[in-house]
Amino acid sequence: MVLEAIHYCRGELSILNQLLLPQSAQYEMVGGVQDAWHAIRDMKVRGAPAIAAVGCLSLAVELVHKDFSTTEEVAEFVSEKLACLVSARPTAVNMTREAQALEEELRDMIRKEGSTAVGVRDWLVTKIEGIPERDIQVNRDIGQHGARHIVEHTRGQKIVILTHCNTGALATCGYGTALGVVRTLHEAGTLERVYCTETRPYNQGARLTAYELVVEGIPGTLLPDSAVAFAMARKNITAVVVGADRIVANGDVANKLGTFSLALAAQHHQIPFYVAAPCSSWDPKLPCGSSVVIEERAAAELTHINGQRIAAQGIDVWNPAFDITPANLITGGIITEFGVFPAADLTAALLASKS
Amino acid sequence: MVLEAIHYCRGELSILNQLLLPQSAQYEMVGGVQDAWHAIRDMKVRGAPAIAAVGCLSLAVELVHKDFSTTEEVAEFVSEKLACLVSARPTAVNMTREAQALEEELRDMIRKEGSTAVGVRDWLVTKIEGIPERDIQVNRDIGQHGARHIVEHTRGQKIVILTHCNTGALATCGYGTALGVVRTLHEAGTLERVYCTETRPYNQGARLTAYELVVEGIPGTLLPDSAVAFAMARKNITAVVVGADRIVANGDVANKLGTFSLALAAQHHQIPFYVAAPCSSWDPKLPCGSSVVIEERAAAELTHINGQRIAAQGIDVWNPAFDITPANLITGGIITEFGVFPAADLTAALLASKS
Repeated sequence: MVLEAIHYCRGELSILNQLLLPQSAQYEMVGGVQDAWHAIRDMKVRGAPAIAAVGCLSLAVELVHKDFSTTEEVAEFVSEKLACLVSARPTAVNMTREAQALEEELRDMIRKEGSTAVGVRDWLVTKIEGIPERDIQVNRDIGQHGARHIVEHTRGQKIVILTHCNTGALATCGYGTALGVVRTLHEAGTLERVYCTETRPYNQGARLTAYELVVEGIPGTLLPDSAVAFAMARKNITAVVVGADRIVANGDVANKLGTFSLALAAQHHQIPFYVAAPCSSWDPKLPCGSSVVIEERAAAELTHINGQRIAAQGIDVWNPAFDITPANLITGGIITEFGVFPAADLTAALLASKS
Repeated sequence: MVLEAIHYCRGELSILNQLLLPQSAQYEMVGGVQDAWHAIRDMKVRGAPAIAAVGCLSLAVELVHKDFSTTEEVAEFVSEKLACLVSARPTAVNMTREAQALEEELRDMIRKEGSTAVGVRDWLVTKIEGIPERDIQVNRDIGQHGARHIVEHTRGQKIVILTHCNTGALATCGYGTALGVVRTLHEAGTLERVYCTETRPYNQGARLTAYELVVEGIPGTLLPDSAVAFAMARKNITAVVVGADRIVANGDVANKLGTFSLALAAQHHQIPFYVAAPCSSWDPKLPCGSSVVIEERAAAELTHINGQRIAAQGIDVWNPAFDITPANLITGGIITEFGVFPAADLTAALLASKS
């Protein structure tokens, strides 16, 4: 069984409602950008790469159902829709970067001689439709680079990975980033076990990562978020691998709340700490972690579960969705589709690869 | 309103069933040692000092309802009952230490000239009945010593404490250990706010500490366990104060799972890390943290909440109730009823105070 968070065929988009997993695997139609905005905001779909894909595909759905008279009309429409999509969640950068890239390329297309409204619209739809396949290939490359790097630094023992949140098929268009590395290790027969955190308060680890592991027969153990340091002391962890929502110029990483604690524990135990993410999570425009806007989510995520109150009435809550891990704690490196780089060198390496 | 985990008057014991808090404050009769064993094992009562008090008081309840013909019969009965109580949960040492002390003193009493079965039985009942008052006084002393130490190291700013699990009135006979320090700071008007972790999987922070804070009007904010490092980066935390289930000879501390992660984050941020505990949590017989038996609890605590499954079916679970924090991470000190000591010096200091 292959898990798919996103179903698309021209003019039709549906997503697996991840709020209902693992109890029920239910797909919901996404009729357009407004639906996508709500699905992203409500976390029916989450994970930086999946958010970007669903956002863009929802635009493609609207485009094929709409007629335009001029190319300028197309540009205006696209621009307005992308601005809306970018606003759904502030911390992950992938949607923003896809939006910028699409707008730039669209402007180039429009400037070309003989461009027509129908022509640029159809070009854009095809462009967007290529995103999922590209994302999966990027994830497979991340998996290969990450697995090779970890194996090379392990001297033949079986590998035990500790991961956080969900970075698997459900967080991407398929395969996964950090969990993609785990998948590659498993496929190669070198993985002994993966420990996954519960990931409060939204429980992406307990609900989604655990589900992916069970479905694919990867040996996995769930633990409370508060067990990460003790697991490193007791469970022979080979490496920690997590995803990223935004990697800034100096190599600091914004990722799911708890990543920073994990990195500190890994440093203490001298266990290599890796971040696995596509280059679309890289944001060289922000200098360092403190410039990233950290989304704070509703108190009810922590005080209620399935509609039932689990915390004392009247208590204040702080519920940031992400934290910042400083570059110097990313001791294993940042695993991208182009290879594994020291966090502090990522920006220079990616700029060089682009020039 | 004063929260009381334990109600006792001669021959009758009842406890607040903490599994039902904060939704419902319901007292349950504890008819004797067997009831107490189940209440402790099922965590209707928890917290190392409260476990010891409930255990001993349940023995007193049985003693007043029973006739003995010889002092030896009393000794045998007591010895068997205490052995049972000690077995309910393995990690906290307080019940074990109370049991040893009671047995020793009982043997001394029996050896005295003219001792009778009724005499030693009544003496033991009275002795046990003194435990709650003594515990509360110990907690108040811990509160004073801890608050003074923190204030002295703070140069006049308002104090912000981060704490973990529940160490309050509900974990003791009243007032609390780490939360007793918070209470003393609040009573003195020097506390700005206390951050308390949710404390998965049993949610002692969200259910019990948050409840105590709301009931007493202490400004408190609940956060996910995974937020502790980020809170230290963003929230001007003055000190971290936690409790202990067992402090061993070299100053290593067994405490609620997550304490070790907290201590690592505090070290990184150069925030003083305190452990507040009565001397009854001190176990000089064990040389270091790795000799402490760590209780592993049922998977269902992590995979279910209020009977509803919240994690994917079929996933393995690791659910240790406690972890070990090395002495060198306890940078603030260990707060006892006798004062605040560097963790590595605690054993020498307490041995000296006893001789």
